[in-house]
Amino acid sequence: MWAEILPVGRDGGTGGYRRFAWTRDDHTLREWFAGECTRRGLDLTLDRMGNQWAWRGDPDSTPGVVIGSHLDSVPDGGAYDGPLGVVSALAVIDALRANGFEPSVPLGVVNFVDEEGARFGVACAGSRVITGAMTSERALGLKDSDGLTMGEALSAAGRSTDIGRDDETLRRIGTFVELHVEQGRALADLDPATSAVAVGTDIWPHGRWRLDFAGEANHAGTTRLEDRQDAMLGYAQTVLAARTVAQQRGCVATMGKVVVDPNGVNAIPSQVTGWLDARGPVEDDVRGAVSDLTAQVEELGGTMREESWTGTTTFDPALAQRMRGLLGGEAPMLGTGAGHDAGILANAGVSTGMLYVRNPTGVSHSPEEFAEADDCHRGVEALATVVEGLAS
Amino acid sequence: MWAEILPVGRDGGTGGYRRFAWTRDDHTLREWFAGECTRRGLDLTLDRMGNQWAWRGDPDSTPGVVIGSHLDSVPDGGAYDGPLGVVSALAVIDALRANGFEPSVPLGVVNFVDEEGARFGVACAGSRVITGAMTSERALGLKDSDGLTMGEALSAAGRSTDIGRDDETLRRIGTFVELHVEQGRALADLDPATSAVAVGTDIWPHGRWRLDFAGEANHAGTTRLEDRQDAMLGYAQTVLAARTVAQQRGCVATMGKVVVDPNGVNAIPSQVTGWLDARGPVEDDVRGAVSDLTAQVEELGGTMREESWTGTTTFDPALAQRMRGLLGGEAPMLGTGAGHDAGILANAGVSTGMLYVRNPTGVSHSPEEFAEADDCHRGVEALATVVEGLAS
Repeated sequence: MWAEILPVGRDGGTGGYRRFAWTRDDHTLREWFAGECTRRGLDLTLDRMGNQWAWRGDPDSTPGVVIGSHLDSVPDGGAYDGPLGVVSALAVIDALRANGFEPSVPLGVVNFVDEEGARFGVACAGSRVITGAMTSERALGLKDSDGLTMGEALSAAGRSTDIGRDDETLRRIGTFVELHVEQGRALADLDPATSAVAVGTDIWPHGRWRLDFAGEANHAGTTRLEDRQDAMLGYAQTVLAARTVAQQRGCVATMGKVVVDPNGVNAIPSQVTGWLDARGPVEDDVRGAVSDLTAQVEELGGTMREESWTGTTTFDPALAQRMRGLLGGEAPMLGTGAGHDAGILANAGVSTGMLYVRNPTGVSHSPEEFAEADDCHRGVEALATVVEGLAS
Repeated sequence: MWAEILPVGRDGGTGGYRRFAWTRDDHTLREWFAGECTRRGLDLTLDRMGNQWAWRGDPDSTPGVVIGSHLDSVPDGGAYDGPLGVVSALAVIDALRANGFEPSVPLGVVNFVDEEGARFGVACAGSRVITGAMTSERALGLKDSDGLTMGEALSAAGRSTDIGRDDETLRRIGTFVELHVEQGRALADLDPATSAVAVGTDIWPHGRWRLDFAGEANHAGTTRLEDRQDAMLGYAQTVLAARTVAQQRGCVATMGKVVVDPNGVNAIPSQVTGWLDARGPVEDDVRGAVSDLTAQVEELGGTMREESWTGTTTFDPALAQRMRGLLGGEAPMLGTGAGHDAGILANAGVSTGMLYVRNPTGVSHSPEEFAEADDCHRGVEALATVVEGLAS
């Protein structure tokens, strides 16, 4: 399976992945997923956002155990973030069948759409829409960098725009367990003998903000410094201020994306739009850092608008303990600064857990992202053990 | 003429122009120029860079008087920067013919290609190549933001890539006079009764530099601040430093263009490339400011590379005095921070002059760029008077 999807959406120059929602590469991966499910005799259904669900057993008979993740990527992302969870879930289906395991509840495998938000700026759009965490109106109106709305992108991809909360789908999920490559190096820093796979405890509070600075387009050679309104200056001061407030509050802050208009070497920028990603272990600290920065942005004449916010997400503690027990009682327990569809489902009241596979360098959202094959296999074994325990 | 070209390459959203070299809009404007020249019985020729030259009289009999400018634009540029000089030149041909003026030397009208450098990053590419100020190898290898080289763009537009210095064309130019909208507000600040048109004296030294900052792509939520190599931070510090060194040295500095990789909201930037445009009245001051900034960039772990540099360009002082005399001896004399093809020709040893038409707001390289119709007409009259004097 890994070899089949490895070339899809890979940029020859950077070696990174550009698997953005509702593009041709995304379509190829969805077709691949559908094929893998069909080959295993699973029943494939789409929910009201186009997330793919494949079932062994009738999911309307009784709530089932669902595993899976996503197949899209950030710009120039790595191979593991998302696909490792989907491929591992399919491998677990195979392993359980090979063992002759007969589950007492339906088993599901899910491929969530648009987890990274790389194209429309809101992460976990697939799970947010079906849980009602994001309204269909807001989702359909989100724009990509070409000015295309999500509604237009759905139509262009031949999908329905009748999206929205999907209670029928949510009712089918008794338990959701997402396996994911770790995106920091907490596991790598532990005892190598015991730390290939960890059980997730919570997701840090995190959010995204859009920052706009207006200037006045003018000639770079003939406009005196004192006559200029250069939008790049406010942006630059804000990039540095974001780092400072994050340090002060024990959070992390990233300004990774910027769009400049007109973006010409000899034209003073008339508009600079930046984005802030802020997270941290303590909700009040993240809120405080963002509030400090907002005050500075407004003093600079800019505006700052929240695009998304998710408070601390605690995974079902009883499920986490049960998973740890099934894994022998020794697995590390891990909180994370990374958002996941599992977090959206947990916030919607679904009993949810996560497993993390060790990342030796801690690098993620990068072509350099990596996990050892041995550790990936241990991830599959752990997920199979957990599913077998939960579905007995 | 003005009404015919006004819609070409105009962005409906911004109202600004996006007339980039060797695009369809550029082609449309070149076809329009060729048609206007043919209708006036001028003989159209292309030089070894594809600049368009239209002649009344045989330019190989004796060097002629050439007027004209360019039709391309910066991103979201104004209507006047370039086209005012081309349209005024054609209007002068009409006015002189209507007056029954018989020139004693050939008269030429030129449309220079790629003056703004909006696509390939080097301004005045058309005049630089034919004067040898830029080698054909360097020009052909320049890349646009899609990674297309100028050579590939020429081929795609059906043009020859056998470009280079063109002595035959240069020999034909006895005198070159470029009329241009002023791009600052020096004229607007003078006595309104006398200041619609000025005579150019010199162009400030000016150049462009490319700044590269390397980081390490990584996850925005799970990478500790102290583990990050965030390329955006070095860029932001440099934007602020550029303003400071320019203030200290009495220059202007602009960082109007930035390209970020991967440019994702939740990925730490692995690469940020910015561009500096720096100019000022005194060569040593501009060089000093750039040298100060280079030291700071290197301290930040970045690199800074000169993409173009043009020292102080003095227009032929005897020609400037003669033009002023022909205009009644009262016209203001003006130096400028804006580069022009006229400057490239002057540096190549051609006797060159400029006329500036008043810009009431001083705004340029912006959709807001403007000149009063009355002032534009006075510009045509002044250019006709100068050409009549020079070609008698």
